[in-house]
Amino acid sequence: MDAISVIRAKRDGHALAPAQIDWVIDAYTRGEVAEEQMSALAMAILLNGMSRAEIARWTAAMIATGERMDFSSLPRPTTDKHSTGGVGDKITLPLAPLVAACGAAVPQLSGRGLGHSGGTLDKLEAIPGWRARIGPDEMLGILREVGAVVCAAGEGLAPADRKLYALRDVTGTVESIPLIASSIMSKKIAEGTGALVLDVKAGSGAFMKTLDDARELAETMVGLGTDHGVRTVALLTDMDTPLGLTAGNALEVREAVEVLAGGGPADVVELTLALAREMLDAAGLTDADPARALAGGSAMDTWRRMIAAQGGDPDAPLPVARETHTVPAPATGVLTGLDAYAVGVAAWRLGAGRARKEDPVQAAAGVELHAKPGDRVTAGAPLLTLHTDTPERFGAALAALEAEGALRVSPTDARVPDVRPTVLGRIADG
Amino acid sequence: MDAISVIRAKRDGHALAPAQIDWVIDAYTRGEVAEEQMSALAMAILLNGMSRAEIARWTAAMIATGERMDFSSLPRPTTDKHSTGGVGDKITLPLAPLVAACGAAVPQLSGRGLGHSGGTLDKLEAIPGWRARIGPDEMLGILREVGAVVCAAGEGLAPADRKLYALRDVTGTVESIPLIASSIMSKKIAEGTGALVLDVKAGSGAFMKTLDDARELAETMVGLGTDHGVRTVALLTDMDTPLGLTAGNALEVREAVEVLAGGGPADVVELTLALAREMLDAAGLTDADPARALAGGSAMDTWRRMIAAQGGDPDAPLPVARETHTVPAPATGVLTGLDAYAVGVAAWRLGAGRARKEDPVQAAAGVELHAKPGDRVTAGAPLLTLHTDTPERFGAALAALEAEGALRVSPTDARVPDVRPTVLGRIADG
Repeated sequence: MDAISVIRAKRDGHALAPAQIDWVIDAYTRGEVAEEQMSALAMAILLNGMSRAEIARWTAAMIATGERMDFSSLPRPTTDKHSTGGVGDKITLPLAPLVAACGAAVPQLSGRGLGHSGGTLDKLEAIPGWRARIGPDEMLGILREVGAVVCAAGEGLAPADRKLYALRDVTGTVESIPLIASSIMSKKIAEGTGALVLDVKAGSGAFMKTLDDARELAETMVGLGTDHGVRTVALLTDMDTPLGLTAGNALEVREAVEVLAGGGPADVVELTLALAREMLDAAGLTDADPARALAGGSAMDTWRRMIAAQGGDPDAPLPVARETHTVPAPATGVLTGLDAYAVGVAAWRLGAGRARKEDPVQAAAGVELHAKPGDRVTAGAPLLTLHTDTPERFGAALAALEAEGALRVSPTDARVPDVRPTVLGRIADG
Repeated sequence: MDAISVIRAKRDGHALAPAQIDWVIDAYTRGEVAEEQMSALAMAILLNGMSRAEIARWTAAMIATGERMDFSSLPRPTTDKHSTGGVGDKITLPLAPLVAACGAAVPQLSGRGLGHSGGTLDKLEAIPGWRARIGPDEMLGILREVGAVVCAAGEGLAPADRKLYALRDVTGTVESIPLIASSIMSKKIAEGTGALVLDVKAGSGAFMKTLDDARELAETMVGLGTDHGVRTVALLTDMDTPLGLTAGNALEVREAVEVLAGGGPADVVELTLALAREMLDAAGLTDADPARALAGGSAMDTWRRMIAAQGGDPDAPLPVARETHTVPAPATGVLTGLDAYAVGVAAWRLGAGRARKEDPVQAAAGVELHAKPGDRVTAGAPLLTLHTDTPERFGAALAALEAEGALRVSPTDARVPDVRPTVLGRIADG
């Protein structure tokens, strides 16, 4: 077996044989296949695709390069959620304690933000004292006692994926559905969850811009989960508009706590409950009632214990930005568009996000929305508030929001297009 | 400018802008664009192609990374030939002194063999004392005094191409017409020749297996030469059958000397004269008569002076293999096929070629043919003679010749297909 023959096979449009996939992933992880060989193969995969069987084998080969976690000693069924990422996507924060309050164990391995898209760990780190990095034994202990844990993935899970992801990031080979699906699912399957619900976002603020691409990614991942014995369901959800009314780390924690307290924006509550129901169903807890757990306070109670178990103080005041700047509505009428990508870039420019993995983030920076598409607005009244510790960044954030089509207001008597619902579809196997 | 945006542009099927091409070639040569980035770009180019304008710019950018040679001080017009390589292709050996004898200067930078395909420098090194590596001043001196020089290219010409070729070799990105054409032409243009004749081979023993691919490569290279002010013409020639009656280093030198002495196989003589006429026409020497120079001995005289100028002894006996093995004709009839690739692999296995750049070659090893397609053969009479210093290699050579369709004999009363002519077409610009 040699790297050139594997690259040529995919380059010439053939399916890779199982033995070729096993060999190339293992040899790449060991350093025998060079970075420049793997990047050529990744480009050939991006341009020529992979079949469902190839993707399944590729995923299995990546899992085989590392450890697998085992939650079978827990008295509760495990269930997990993965979002493909978007703007204002704080759903994991209320969702994990809510599902745990309903009787499941939620081992939520999460990541950090990059570019316009936020990361769950960055958000939780806005809470004084909270730490993302905990060991496997501590994780199991929190799952047993609290039922939910949100933490960074250990180095041992699918090391091939870690290496390949870093390579794809610098070689223009990120945007391949087979490679995205196998990257996500190799970590989720190695993590050892029994059930998995995928939140696959479609729209300007998402990785997948079109619903068709999101559906293809969702179907690929659901197929992969099923092939590996994980009960997997996907919801296709909107990301043309930011989720909720905040984008930024502490701002989003505040909004998540509002949801846990029984309030919060309608779309965040809707999506949290929809995903909770799917997670509980997939875990076999079909009698659980997440709406009641949210209203009755048990989800909030689990949240407080979950934060405290990782060193956080749920009662500590959240960081507040040194400076704010208000953006007024440009006209009177109905807000018909508030572009997720523009808001995400604005939050990033304000300091909430990072351009490179090693950059720090500001806990208090971000964008607060005072209206959502479908709402009436009045010219000159506050539409957005920008938050930052570094006011010299307001200019860059405003520039992002001034992009063509970022904010659209129609006269109230105009024919206004329907606002896209939060949940656009559902994908389950077979 | 950054590597990822250049890779993405080509990946997504766009033409690269001139500034993108200039930047990526220069930055790659300086090590700022990483090997894994360039290999991803090379794969995207291989799969998505480049326009004529992109290929011209890519070639110019590679030339700009190094030195250019200058032969303008010579009293004669310069003219050069490049062959895309094949089995038994010893044409440079009689051609360079023949064209010099007709009044042109021939600065022939040549390479070594790899795999089933031989290299001109390996062949000339079979001559006792001859050396391939000479400096630029010595090269200019020989061109002035003798008119022809065959030597290794210096390190200074198109270093981007040297680096990129080594990368393509290990990343499955060799087989791209834009990359092949720009690689060949960047060196030929940097070399500073005024006229160039390309021998683009098509067939089993050639890089381009089909006439259509060979035509596309030829048209691309002729366009590149023209765009850079070099008078360029291409002949499309057959490589389904080995050229002449020998494949191997000393064996081919012997055959080249036979041609210079006025004898030799008809196809070698035909192609040598056809290429000589093209080279002389392109150099403006339209009155020259290469057939007369060959018959009258002036080409042989120039050959002897050319070999001696590089330390070789034109009168020294050529190395002879320690062992030979005769392969008889399998049946009586007409030889209708003698596969160039099979013969090339057999010669390589016998020791005439190398698997890796650093391997040594045997001067005396190779395959001698006793018949060519169209000839009558008698069952049991010698068809091929294998030569090697290492008789344990006969088995591997015979295995190559026993491949499906390598040797085909038809009964004399069968309907025998026409033998393909040596010259299949001619490409000139505009």
